[in-house]
Amino acid sequence: MAKKFISMRNLKFLIYEVFDAVGLTKHDYYSQHNRKMFDMVLDAAMKLSVKLLFPLFEEMDRKPPELEAGVVKVHPQVRELMKQYGEGGWIASTFPEAFDGEQLPALVSNCCNMMFSAANYSGAAYPGLASGAARLITNFASQELIDSYVARMLSGEWQGTMALTEPQAGSSLSDITTMAEPTEAGHYLIKGQKIFISAGDHDGVDNVVHLMLAKIPGGPPGVKGISLFVVPKQRFDENGKLVFNDIAVSQIYHKMGYRGCPITELAIGEKDDCHGYLVGEAHKGLFYMFQMMNEERIGVGLAAAAIASAAYYAALEYALERPQGRPVSSKDLLSPQVPIAEHADVKRMLLFQRSVVEGSFSLLLLCSYYEDMCKLTTGDEKETYELLLDLLTPVAKTYSSEMGILSTSQSIQCFGGYGYCEDFPVEQYFRDMRIHPIHEGTTGIQGMDILGRKVIMKDGRAFMLFGKTVREAIAAAGQYRELEPYAAQLSKQLESLENVTLHLTSVAGEKGPAVFLADATLYLELFSYLSIGWQWLLQASAAQKAMQGKLSRSETNFYQGKWFTFRYFFEYELPKAQGVIRRLMSPDALTVDMRPEFFND
Amino acid sequence: MAKKFISMRNLKFLIYEVFDAVGLTKHDYYSQHNRKMFDMVLDAAMKLSVKLLFPLFEEMDRKPPELEAGVVKVHPQVRELMKQYGEGGWIASTFPEAFDGEQLPALVSNCCNMMFSAANYSGAAYPGLASGAARLITNFASQELIDSYVARMLSGEWQGTMALTEPQAGSSLSDITTMAEPTEAGHYLIKGQKIFISAGDHDGVDNVVHLMLAKIPGGPPGVKGISLFVVPKQRFDENGKLVFNDIAVSQIYHKMGYRGCPITELAIGEKDDCHGYLVGEAHKGLFYMFQMMNEERIGVGLAAAAIASAAYYAALEYALERPQGRPVSSKDLLSPQVPIAEHADVKRMLLFQRSVVEGSFSLLLLCSYYEDMCKLTTGDEKETYELLLDLLTPVAKTYSSEMGILSTSQSIQCFGGYGYCEDFPVEQYFRDMRIHPIHEGTTGIQGMDILGRKVIMKDGRAFMLFGKTVREAIAAAGQYRELEPYAAQLSKQLESLENVTLHLTSVAGEKGPAVFLADATLYLELFSYLSIGWQWLLQASAAQKAMQGKLSRSETNFYQGKWFTFRYFFEYELPKAQGVIRRLMSPDALTVDMRPEFFND
Repeated sequence: MAKKFISMRNLKFLIYEVFDAVGLTKHDYYSQHNRKMFDMVLDAAMKLSVKLLFPLFEEMDRKPPELEAGVVKVHPQVRELMKQYGEGGWIASTFPEAFDGEQLPALVSNCCNMMFSAANYSGAAYPGLASGAARLITNFASQELIDSYVARMLSGEWQGTMALTEPQAGSSLSDITTMAEPTEAGHYLIKGQKIFISAGDHDGVDNVVHLMLAKIPGGPPGVKGISLFVVPKQRFDENGKLVFNDIAVSQIYHKMGYRGCPITELAIGEKDDCHGYLVGEAHKGLFYMFQMMNEERIGVGLAAAAIASAAYYAALEYALERPQGRPVSSKDLLSPQVPIAEHADVKRMLLFQRSVVEGSFSLLLLCSYYEDMCKLTTGDEKETYELLLDLLTPVAKTYSSEMGILSTSQSIQCFGGYGYCEDFPVEQYFRDMRIHPIHEGTTGIQGMDILGRKVIMKDGRAFMLFGKTVREAIAAAGQYRELEPYAAQLSKQLESLENVTLHLTSVAGEKGPAVFLADATLYLELFSYLSIGWQWLLQASAAQKAMQGKLSRSETNFYQGKWFTFRYFFEYELPKAQGVIRRLMSPDALTVDMRPEFFND
Repeated sequence: MAKKFISMRNLKFLIYEVFDAVGLTKHDYYSQHNRKMFDMVLDAAMKLSVKLLFPLFEEMDRKPPELEAGVVKVHPQVRELMKQYGEGGWIASTFPEAFDGEQLPALVSNCCNMMFSAANYSGAAYPGLASGAARLITNFASQELIDSYVARMLSGEWQGTMALTEPQAGSSLSDITTMAEPTEAGHYLIKGQKIFISAGDHDGVDNVVHLMLAKIPGGPPGVKGISLFVVPKQRFDENGKLVFNDIAVSQIYHKMGYRGCPITELAIGEKDDCHGYLVGEAHKGLFYMFQMMNEERIGVGLAAAAIASAAYYAALEYALERPQGRPVSSKDLLSPQVPIAEHADVKRMLLFQRSVVEGSFSLLLLCSYYEDMCKLTTGDEKETYELLLDLLTPVAKTYSSEMGILSTSQSIQCFGGYGYCEDFPVEQYFRDMRIHPIHEGTTGIQGMDILGRKVIMKDGRAFMLFGKTVREAIAAAGQYRELEPYAAQLSKQLESLENVTLHLTSVAGEKGPAVFLADATLYLELFSYLSIGWQWLLQASAAQKAMQGKLSRSETNFYQGKWFTFRYFFEYELPKAQGVIRRLMSPDALTVDMRPEFFND
């Protein structure tokens, strides 16, 4: 088992040197914090990760949950995990003090979540869901619901979930059929079926609180008829006692990875006795849910990048220790073999992984910073942060997830045949990773989201703000002579992205939405190269700044590593945008014209 | 379980319409065959695949081999598999009649192997190894060894293996330490350890015959001191009785995929009683082994493409049946949902998979055709085929393997969440696939092979022949007006490849081998885009020819599918070469300059 799964040094570099964690504490809302306290929080998160989560990483995979007599049995340590998450204040870390929360910036809190997910993704999924579900209640539900549910979700006693998907409606939420019949008593009677519900039930907690989408009879068709309900596994009866609320687990899924957390199929209201409690107003459920959805999308990107981080450090450790072969230029067959980390091709694979991991982390933490700034600002400034966060969420989710597959695959490759064996952890990282381009909106859905909604909303305002922000980074980088050619390269790529966007919006007018959106996934890919290039330019600028001063050897190594990884990204990754641009500018709408029957033979 | 795993129509298209299987029968060596007989052979292979291999696909994964009291227990049906492979003549299919072989062209035989691997890769690995090992004996060993071993390997009674890898020498074969001490009796005493030996021992056969690399004391250092031995698990004693030959299985590996076939670690000669029999001359072992190695590399590419084929057909079946969402342009929320195969993004994913599968099959079958032509020709003509086969082997192995990962990943994506679950076969295809960029020479090794050896050997003769051959295809495609722009695009790419090659050879002179070879993997990637583009141009030409005539509806669909997949490749895949070219022309040797300590922090 590898010893390291994430770099604390890198996280601190990102939040203190690239982004302004300390600056946040100048605002009232975060004024109880300072850098020293942030460091203590990060250390505590690392301790929990090292002591509890990491040692369970393999075991939770090898002993996956089982459904026994209606009960989902998870690893016995899950209860301990939830307890420690609750007691340590991790589930409530970003909640206001009014909810007994730590009122931490997301910028810092998400560093902790990265550690948890890098140490053990399955183990980190439980509290993440509890936190997101609780926030949905605090933001939109009645005081009564808040009082009844939130405290026990934040303490880790009760699990929270998001219950959206149904068998006939995967990515197409407008087609859900779970019904919510109003009653005179005020609650609704829920009836339906939900599938793929993460942590949808398990014996590591005393109760499960579903944030569930359902339709109230007589509502408008499609997504405008969807409402949001709190639907607990056990509800309070009139005496305040918990009683069974008619939700049964009909099956759990046996999965390729992410095996430490149960994904469940739920039968709801089979005995017509499942009570649900409306959150906010009727028919506005999807709007509310999207708050949790967007948070979870960042969470998915974060988990993907964290898994890639753990796989990268496993591969790095192996590559630094494993002797194999000799330098290409060496003629002496009897000289000792060198560690494979000295071969250029292995260094290339390692730099690739590092570029994905640290590029993703940077974008995800920038999104977290924007989330914090939304809380601290008002008016136009607030809108700016909201728009940028909206625009970048599909990028941060998808780049980390899709590139995470390639990155963990390269981690395996560094190990050679050993990487394919269960004795080393990288095969599990590769399996755990593969869920991420699917859940919380597939990559295809994210592509439609960015091109079909985010880029064009408010007359392209978010997109314009993005261009402005990237240009500011390019201008700032220009002060370091070494960065000039790279800044120029990114500037050119930004212009290309703008040209492509203009071209596609004209296609939308001329040829309609089908052709406009046909390559939305590729557009998102292009947007990602640009966004991650921007992140690397920000990091390179911070590294250049640090390298002006006097540094210890280990600090020099760190910044040199940043510098080489930055160059790697601009030399090997950013040029991939060219092929995508060529395709996006092409008039051949072949994927629209292709007919399903042509696949037959 | 999906019903289809490979397209017979496509295989026949490739061998009869793109390549000239029938033309081969005009040569004496293959004159006992004709198209009708080839069709019968293909049908028989399909029958074996459907009846025996495919039904065991999932089961062999779920019940992997176990090592019990020194015996490797495999699925009980493996014995039946080997029996039927032997009796059906499949192991000996390309062997001359002198060995009771079918004397089939590799072009046809490899179509059968594609079916077997698509139906059940693990199940198909056993006979492939037996066949390759037997051929090594017939080509290079003494008549005595041939008489003693070959017949029972071809009958499926005995397993054959290739035993190269050792713990301290993975990709670095010059560092093997297994020793072969000569004895006065004529045999050698073998002592050492081998790891990652596929089918290295199992109870589905009565004996195992290892083709093993070892060093004879006093030989030259490095690869020039490696000799090849036949080392049976049980040897014949002086009375012709089989006795234990001191080879023990010290462990079997538990793997992420490819779980139906045991990969073993062998302890050889622990009691100093392991007899080995020299094949050919001493110290020429690696030269001999490379015959089997090259055959197995094509075999790996073939298996990878076959697995991708099976995953593609599973995804296609699902996409054609699964209703989800509505056309982008539809405003009617109450209209029925459409199959996801009607969404442009899903069609794009399916076209991607098809382009990988059928592009790979085409290149692999072209290699098989070259292999056949090597047997039928002499002098310069023979050398031409040998050089082209040598040059294209790393391409055919690597493109299929690396793109196979992406292709099976997209198969999962078509299924959404279901694809991540064990109820559907695609997660297993994804797991089975991941071994291929590793075994029989990693992708990094293949890159060094093509750039460091194949392209420059004989003053670039192979590379020049390649250019000439591709230009012939471009010229031939020019007769179809619809193909002209694509032919021009490929022509331009070919020029770029030539420029890059010229540039890199000048780098070799100026900056030495380390910089020259640093991006060999990327060079191989570039070579692959070009090679697969060439294959698609060949296929499009054949499709255009067929579409000049009158066709049934199903034939029209088939050729339209080819036409769209061809366009897909030129629109979406071939442009990826641009980013690679940009990198290969860059002067920044950052992966050479990067120092291992910069990875630390």
